[in-house]
Amino acid sequence: MIRPLLLAGAALLGAALPTSPASAAQKAGRSWTIDDQLTVPEVRDLAVSADAKSAIYVVRIADRQSDRTVALLRYVDLEKGTTRELQRAAWIDQLKRIPGTGDWSARLDKGNGVQLYRIGASGAVTPIVAHPATAIYGDTEGAVLPGYGHAPLATGVRAHSWSPDGRWLWYVVLDAAPFVKAMRYDDAVTAERAQRRAPGRATASIYLRDPEGRDILLATRPQSDLRTFFDRSFVQWEKDEVRFDVMETDPAGGQQVVTIGWSFTSEKIRVVDGKAARGYWRLPGLHGGRLSSEGTGDTRELVETIPGDERRSFGRFPFAVGDARAAGGFLSPDGRRAIAGFRTIDNPRFGLAIIENDRVRTISSALSLNYCDFTVSLTKGACIAQSQTVPPSVVRVDVASGGITRVASVSADHEGIAPLRIEPRTWINRHGYKATGYIVWPRGYTKGRQYPAIVITHASDADDRFATHENQWEYPAQLFAERGYVVLLVNSPTSRQNAEIDAAYEAWVSETKAVSPEKLRQLIWLNSVATFEDSVKELVDRGIVNPARVGIAGYSFGSQMTNVTITNSSMFRAASSGDGGYLEPAFYFNVAGSYGTVFGGPPTDPAALANYRRLSPSLRANEVCGAVLQQVAAPLIPSIDLHAALRKAGVPAQLSLYPGENTATDETHIFHIPSNRILAMEENIAWFDYWLLGKRDPQSPHADRYALWDKMRDAAPRSCSAKTANDENRH
Amino acid sequence: MIRPLLLAGAALLGAALPTSPASAAQKAGRSWTIDDQLTVPEVRDLAVSADAKSAIYVVRIADRQSDRTVALLRYVDLEKGTTRELQRAAWIDQLKRIPGTGDWSARLDKGNGVQLYRIGASGAVTPIVAHPATAIYGDTEGAVLPGYGHAPLATGVRAHSWSPDGRWLWYVVLDAAPFVKAMRYDDAVTAERAQRRAPGRATASIYLRDPEGRDILLATRPQSDLRTFFDRSFVQWEKDEVRFDVMETDPAGGQQVVTIGWSFTSEKIRVVDGKAARGYWRLPGLHGGRLSSEGTGDTRELVETIPGDERRSFGRFPFAVGDARAAGGFLSPDGRRAIAGFRTIDNPRFGLAIIENDRVRTISSALSLNYCDFTVSLTKGACIAQSQTVPPSVVRVDVASGGITRVASVSADHEGIAPLRIEPRTWINRHGYKATGYIVWPRGYTKGRQYPAIVITHASDADDRFATHENQWEYPAQLFAERGYVVLLVNSPTSRQNAEIDAAYEAWVSETKAVSPEKLRQLIWLNSVATFEDSVKELVDRGIVNPARVGIAGYSFGSQMTNVTITNSSMFRAASSGDGGYLEPAFYFNVAGSYGTVFGGPPTDPAALANYRRLSPSLRANEVCGAVLQQVAAPLIPSIDLHAALRKAGVPAQLSLYPGENTATDETHIFHIPSNRILAMEENIAWFDYWLLGKRDPQSPHADRYALWDKMRDAAPRSCSAKTANDENRH
Repeated sequence: MIRPLLLAGAALLGAALPTSPASAAQKAGRSWTIDDQLTVPEVRDLAVSADAKSAIYVVRIADRQSDRTVALLRYVDLEKGTTRELQRAAWIDQLKRIPGTGDWSARLDKGNGVQLYRIGASGAVTPIVAHPATAIYGDTEGAVLPGYGHAPLATGVRAHSWSPDGRWLWYVVLDAAPFVKAMRYDDAVTAERAQRRAPGRATASIYLRDPEGRDILLATRPQSDLRTFFDRSFVQWEKDEVRFDVMETDPAGGQQVVTIGWSFTSEKIRVVDGKAARGYWRLPGLHGGRLSSEGTGDTRELVETIPGDERRSFGRFPFAVGDARAAGGFLSPDGRRAIAGFRTIDNPRFGLAIIENDRVRTISSALSLNYCDFTVSLTKGACIAQSQTVPPSVVRVDVASGGITRVASVSADHEGIAPLRIEPRTWINRHGYKATGYIVWPRGYTKGRQYPAIVITHASDADDRFATHENQWEYPAQLFAERGYVVLLVNSPTSRQNAEIDAAYEAWVSETKAVSPEKLRQLIWLNSVATFEDSVKELVDRGIVNPARVGIAGYSFGSQMTNVTITNSSMFRAASSGDGGYLEPAFYFNVAGSYGTVFGGPPTDPAALANYRRLSPSLRANEVCGAVLQQVAAPLIPSIDLHAALRKAGVPAQLSLYPGENTATDETHIFHIPSNRILAMEENIAWFDYWLLGKRDPQSPHADRYALWDKMRDAAPRSCSAKTANDENRH
Repeated sequence: MIRPLLLAGAALLGAALPTSPASAAQKAGRSWTIDDQLTVPEVRDLAVSADAKSAIYVVRIADRQSDRTVALLRYVDLEKGTTRELQRAAWIDQLKRIPGTGDWSARLDKGNGVQLYRIGASGAVTPIVAHPATAIYGDTEGAVLPGYGHAPLATGVRAHSWSPDGRWLWYVVLDAAPFVKAMRYDDAVTAERAQRRAPGRATASIYLRDPEGRDILLATRPQSDLRTFFDRSFVQWEKDEVRFDVMETDPAGGQQVVTIGWSFTSEKIRVVDGKAARGYWRLPGLHGGRLSSEGTGDTRELVETIPGDERRSFGRFPFAVGDARAAGGFLSPDGRRAIAGFRTIDNPRFGLAIIENDRVRTISSALSLNYCDFTVSLTKGACIAQSQTVPPSVVRVDVASGGITRVASVSADHEGIAPLRIEPRTWINRHGYKATGYIVWPRGYTKGRQYPAIVITHASDADDRFATHENQWEYPAQLFAERGYVVLLVNSPTSRQNAEIDAAYEAWVSETKAVSPEKLRQLIWLNSVATFEDSVKELVDRGIVNPARVGIAGYSFGSQMTNVTITNSSMFRAASSGDGGYLEPAFYFNVAGSYGTVFGGPPTDPAALANYRRLSPSLRANEVCGAVLQQVAAPLIPSIDLHAALRKAGVPAQLSLYPGENTATDETHIFHIPSNRILAMEENIAWFDYWLLGKRDPQSPHADRYALWDKMRDAAPRSCSAKTANDENRH
């Protein structure tokens, strides 16, 4: 639960430049339904054939009937546009072309755990590696690692990579350790502080399958090697050896990424780099280096950092490479062309940077391009194209010309919806800080009428993709717009717009003391509150939004922002906070380093306690002027503490726990159980309708809660003045 | 985990009067071994036959071979003294005579869960009620309630009671609720704060079996009815109806015990008493009332409180009735004789108070009498007799004459051990407070030599029973004495010795604000520290104990006292603290009411934080002058926080987690897995030998820890002055 909250912080990128909004002409079509919200397709991977005449891709879709989120593997003829479903499975990922063949490989869970299969263009699926799958990823008893939005996943094969000639296969299999009744000491115990359930243990075995089909064991790795167990292993195929990254943990707990090489000739293993870089994304440049975007502001410098500390600049661009949501990096075998996915800084949209002859050109359009793959020579490829209003489709990309051609829809159902008017915006708040986002206008908006409004926030995830689950979570933004709400999808002020805020985020993420707790509170949290307030205030001032009917919602990173907002602003009559709790004092020992930066120490240090009392939502419960719903995937301490504090302060509050598949399993941080998702969306609709509009729907699955809400409302006749946040805390 | 810590507080009773010590004449015999410590028999129940010519009893004994604690059911001929083993099972309890027959009934787990059986004197065992046993008691995933010292126990039958004529059977069966995927709200979520694993759910069905064998369902109870799920149900058989207690929970969480009656004639159910008394122990008097001991000091007033508020006094006695460790209460059918078990206030020993013709006489001896049962007319009976030095045996009791006759040994093995010299003591500390306990002298004590010493403390559990597991936990007191330690079994100052300390305990247990946090700190915690210090100091002053070689150990209630002692006293070079953590700030929300009393509020309230910083062990880690071992049954937050704080302060510290039967199960607060018990005792031996004596044993199962201990010792060259605790905190 900790990592996602913090990574959300690290992922904040981008800044503000006005560009043209995506075409949002009202087409004929139907309105959004809750089923549309539920079944927004989540494309997860795409791979083209060697000649880029065809591609396969994976899309995950909630299946209401089985109450599972299922993965579909589809084959697309990139010339004709015809699409066939090849497989439907509990899990599919890691699509890779098998060099020298017309086939692909992929990890699939066909009922016996996640294994490695060969996928023929005909749809034939044959096992490559099948390993007894006993190591579980998921939020369940005995799992080796938590699940990020999926049901518990028994895993046999963790990762794989083909040599460029397709003759060698590098792969990782997992072996769950049988339970051995043994004492544990010290750090092995403290690691389970406030953890629900006991983790399982496993080892990872890294193998190389040689051209004769012989399996060579390269290494057996402990579970502390997160590079192998969780991250990519960054497999690189050199002329004489295959290289991959592992993570070593020293007895003091220090972690170091180490690059290992195994020689095809000597058949020996060696340490290539004992101190490899730890960045989770590596974009290859033309000179053996790594591409990145540097600096702050509305443009960023694209540079290649070459081993030996040489640094080559390509100039400044209004985009950044290296964003985890953009397409990855590609390099042609002759080293003459590199492709790196980028994300624009203003109106964040995804495109491709092509680097040739030390020059950079871009391939982009009104739609974002993600999940791209290319031929070996990087001449042709395919991507997923989408925007806030346009559902994902498969497009063909001609790299030389930059041409993008639509090939096939990913979701015909969603193409049938009449697009809403979704307006990209850059807001500049009272402190001069920019934030990006969108206004989703109510269907049939009538000028002169006042509308209720809901702010939805999740760090920087409001960008030009289609109704992204990772941004909206179970807040049905489109359905709210259909129901007459103005919806504001508002990012927090971008972290790299200037050196001051960049330094604040850097201190926070790196857990230094370079920036004071008070400065962090102002630059990160209250700055976001100011943005949310000011984005609404503009619409209030224009007569569009009714100031008495404004709500706010967000999960994870957005949950902490929602919690801070509702405890610092009197603008919001209702809040919905999803599965978060960072900033709560009781969480200190789990994130001591981070809280050391944010608060200056533990809450039991009187000097630091003063900072907690200024920022921790549960310690500001008396300041709340709205009703607070928390929807959670597990009964975690911080959410419980905030709920208890709100109730104690007389604030209308509800804590709703969404269950897992069984008693020993929890729902995941990103919900994956369709019935939970429907119920959570319905709960958000009922909550905002009730607290903002005074409306009740006897057909709501949550109608039995109205009586309690009435009671809380009547017991809490709070009158909040119209003061804005930060009145006493300007910076 | 919470309740046992707090109940330990409520159970503190007794005060100080000198009486003669148990005979401790050195008999020929062997020394204690670790296997003797492990296999100290725990008698759990005893029932005599209608004529008291025979009895059955249950003893639980650790079985090293199967690594389980097993229950043995034994039959004793009370005239001849012959003993036969009737059954060996995972669990046996609730022994009852079946009126009108020569048989008994009991709950047994013979492999299909805990069910109700008929036990013939011949040993024949036949089922009475067998219910599919799916509700689990234990520290495991999906259990309905935690386990108190036993492996997860699948339970079919929870309780039973026979009508006086033996024709009717009242009983309770449990039905685990199948998992239903459903949202949970508010209190149903907060109840799981910091809980490991998700609890299961069950209902209890209360039945009456009529003389024709027809089963009549009287009530189906929810799991919130702890009276049915956890406590005794206090079944009373009246002429016209059977009565039993249930617990009702109102929507606001308030709990009320309600007495229900079911009429044999109308076959209808009614509420007999909507506000029944909640005391967990009810001793019947001769006038339809309830016996109790009242007041403070070295004697207590024995009174019968009769419905209608009449109160009859029997005068003052140097004992108290109503202690959960004493024998229960009995009343003859003619209402002329009552028997109540008592515990003496000084040198706490157990005996029987016989009440006839409004007079009280006692039956007692140099041995404690517990687990007694009598004929219906209360003329004859049997008890378990034991003392600190004498292993349990079965004795015959003639009530009229008060005669006690030894019948049979419970553990021949332990009879073979040459008794240690164990001296009962009453200490008066520097503040004038009395505490009881024992000095266990080293085998072969030589006057003039200085010995190392270990204080072992657990509330008031140092009394005249044999090597009680609930008192000593995994601190092998007898083996320490064999190895040359002076062992002090020291109770905290008795809570009812005067009105001031009584009021302090009353405020603590009842969670009022009647006594200030500072006064509580002085009267409860620092008062105990003073007692521990002063009991050692006396032996130091007499030249018996080497002041540089003194340790302290305690679990649960004793763990909080150990933690407070090591953070307030410089006397102890080593501590072993068992599975406790009450007083740690992070535990606040789980015990908010209790901490409200002890600290004045949550730790995030600056005024209350000052109190935490004075008392919470983890906030006083810098004051520690010894090495601190924590042995725990689960990775609970408070123990982890204390460990982290100690390590941060440079204090040598170890946190040792003892595992459960499998990944989804924890060891219980009172350890029940023999291999864990052996390892924990060996760890305590290794820990104290190392830190107090500088000794290391290469054969110790913990020998691999010495290297780390060396490192911690060398890194923490603390020099603690010989100041005593409370120097700056006198009251």
